[in-house]
Amino acid sequence: MLMTELITKKRDGGKLSGEEIRFIVDGYTKGDIPDYQMSAFLMAVFFQGMDREETLELTMAMMHSGDTLDLSGISGVKADKHSTGGVGDKTSLVLVPMVASLGVKMAKMSGRGLGHTGGTLDKLESFPGFNINIGHERFMENVEKVGMVIAGQTADLDPADKKMYALRDVTGTVNSIPLIVSSIMSKKLAAGADVIVLDVKTGSGSFMKTPEDAHVLASEMVEIGKLAGRKTIAVVTDMDQPLGSAVGNALEVKEAIATLKGEYAGDLLELCLTLGTCILTAAGLADSDASARAMLQGTIDSGAALEKLAEFVAAQDGDPNSVYDTSLLPMAPVHMEVPAETAGYVSHLDALGIGMTSLKLGGGRATKESDVDLSVGVVVHKKVGDRVAQGESLATIHAATEEAAAAAVAQYRACVTVTAQAPDPVPFIKEIVR
Amino acid sequence: MLMTELITKKRDGGKLSGEEIRFIVDGYTKGDIPDYQMSAFLMAVFFQGMDREETLELTMAMMHSGDTLDLSGISGVKADKHSTGGVGDKTSLVLVPMVASLGVKMAKMSGRGLGHTGGTLDKLESFPGFNINIGHERFMENVEKVGMVIAGQTADLDPADKKMYALRDVTGTVNSIPLIVSSIMSKKLAAGADVIVLDVKTGSGSFMKTPEDAHVLASEMVEIGKLAGRKTIAVVTDMDQPLGSAVGNALEVKEAIATLKGEYAGDLLELCLTLGTCILTAAGLADSDASARAMLQGTIDSGAALEKLAEFVAAQDGDPNSVYDTSLLPMAPVHMEVPAETAGYVSHLDALGIGMTSLKLGGGRATKESDVDLSVGVVVHKKVGDRVAQGESLATIHAATEEAAAAAVAQYRACVTVTAQAPDPVPFIKEIVR
Repeated sequence: MLMTELITKKRDGGKLSGEEIRFIVDGYTKGDIPDYQMSAFLMAVFFQGMDREETLELTMAMMHSGDTLDLSGISGVKADKHSTGGVGDKTSLVLVPMVASLGVKMAKMSGRGLGHTGGTLDKLESFPGFNINIGHERFMENVEKVGMVIAGQTADLDPADKKMYALRDVTGTVNSIPLIVSSIMSKKLAAGADVIVLDVKTGSGSFMKTPEDAHVLASEMVEIGKLAGRKTIAVVTDMDQPLGSAVGNALEVKEAIATLKGEYAGDLLELCLTLGTCILTAAGLADSDASARAMLQGTIDSGAALEKLAEFVAAQDGDPNSVYDTSLLPMAPVHMEVPAETAGYVSHLDALGIGMTSLKLGGGRATKESDVDLSVGVVVHKKVGDRVAQGESLATIHAATEEAAAAAVAQYRACVTVTAQAPDPVPFIKEIVR
Repeated sequence: MLMTELITKKRDGGKLSGEEIRFIVDGYTKGDIPDYQMSAFLMAVFFQGMDREETLELTMAMMHSGDTLDLSGISGVKADKHSTGGVGDKTSLVLVPMVASLGVKMAKMSGRGLGHTGGTLDKLESFPGFNINIGHERFMENVEKVGMVIAGQTADLDPADKKMYALRDVTGTVNSIPLIVSSIMSKKLAAGADVIVLDVKTGSGSFMKTPEDAHVLASEMVEIGKLAGRKTIAVVTDMDQPLGSAVGNALEVKEAIATLKGEYAGDLLELCLTLGTCILTAAGLADSDASARAMLQGTIDSGAALEKLAEFVAAQDGDPNSVYDTSLLPMAPVHMEVPAETAGYVSHLDALGIGMTSLKLGGGRATKESDVDLSVGVVVHKKVGDRVAQGESLATIHAATEEAAAAAVAQYRACVTVTAQAPDPVPFIKEIVR
């Protein structure tokens, strides 16, 4: 088989066989196929697409490019959750303890973040002493014993995706449905869970700008997951404004804890209840959405989910007291309010702009080598649709210096649109694809 | 400027500025832009195309990526000719001496061939002693004194094209009009001629399978040449069967000599008269096509063109006697006829198949490192439309061994279709684009 011929075949709209796709993925992973042929191929896929059969073959070939996690020795239902990413997305920190406290096993290998905030691993390091580098043995032990692990990779999962994603990132080939689907699903399949729930964001702060695009991505991922033999559900959710209120690592951890304490009841809780309901019903642990939701709310009301979080933090060498006493978490020295200049209704929040404000405060990584300041970020007080009086605080900036805070105030203000009339309400949960 | 952003701009159908295109070409030539970004960009161009302004900017950027030939010190009109390539194409060996004998200066830097036959340089080496490696000084002297030079490169012309073409060849991005146009025209512009005549082949034996595709390519090249300030004319010609009769290096040289002696009057002569007419009228050396044609025919009738060929061969250390006595040229030891199995009319000749037959006899290069046997090849006796009796020879195979000849006979026969009815005649010159 010649790579040049396979590039030409896809370029001309041809359908690749499983054998051909495996040749490409294996050859590229091993280094037999050079980057310059792979990038031309990926661009041809960008233009010509892949049908479902090709996407499945690509996903499976990528999944099998490295180690896969064997969770068969773990008792009970094993679930996994993936978000396509957005601003203020601390969902895992709330959802995972909730479902784990109900007996679902959650084994998550996560990455560092690159962009407006740190990744889940960065956020977790807000807990004093928290260890993301536990070996494979402890990883498996903790899944069984605690019911949840979130850690760095202990195995070489999906090396094809690592190599392909790095290439796509610099060759204008990120934004292609079959490539996004195979990238996400190959990693999820390799991670070994029986139940996979996908949070597909849509809106200005996300990758899929319209609910229609998000629907296509969600449907494709669900179909690929099912064809691969996993129970797969996707929820399409709004990302036109940040999720919840906190944007920044320790600030997001604090919001997650507050949510598990039952102190917040906004979009973040709604999302966790919805995703949790999908997991529990797919896992057969609840016989209706209503009972699943009641069970999940129960984990908050009883404090079981918060206890599970503390147990998890302790099991990974973190200080469990910091879950109950959040003053033990990193705290920025400077707090500055962003007062509204006019009264009215918040009609638009620029999610990406708010993410960038947090990044500039030091809360995210501009390059792979950047250090993240866990304490800084933004806490949004007025979300879209909220009424605001003149001088009332739109948000609080948490910064390392007065100077950085003042700059962030100006940046944040540019992200907020206040109008005389209230905007039409927009549904937060757009669709559930099963 | 970021290459990733330029890839994305083109991918999404955007128009690139001259500055952006120069950034890409210069960056790639210098090695600042890696192959994998360039190949993704080229694939984006394959799908989104380039408008004329972009194609011109690309052509000029490539032309200026290395040395350019300054022919301003040479007296008279300087012309150049390019063919998009086909089977049995020995046009330069006939055309260049004809127009040079009329005072037009032809300075050609040529390459080795890769494929069914050798390139022009390989063919010229059929003349005993012929030297393709003359330095820059002798190159310029000979252009002025003899009026024609065909030699290997004495300067680093268009390094961008060399690098880009090698990449396109292995990434499925050869077949794109703006990329073909810029590749050909940047080299022709760098070579410094005032008048550029282009022979665009169409048909099964060429790159452009239909006259419509060839028309588009021809028109684009002519427009780019004009915009760059050169007199540019393109002729679209048939390549559904080999040009002339000989396919193979020394065999093609012998056919060229016979044509210059006035012994042949087929498609090859017609092509040379047509291309020569374009050159003479564009150069202002003839005031009508009819007078140009008469002048060109005159160079054959008077023997001036043949003498010019001998002068040229001598000026590059070759034996001029071999022009007059072709028994001094390489000759294969084995000759074998291909008798027709049935009577009828030749309705189709597979030009590429005949080229491959010559290649397998040793007349072409399968890889860059292959040696070429200058003596071997095929001489076609029956072209499309010709009547043939059963047992009559369709072609003569010139081979190194009986075994190779026998294999070539079978291969050749598979390239010929004989039918009871004569095929409809097809015009050889399809179009002249000025």
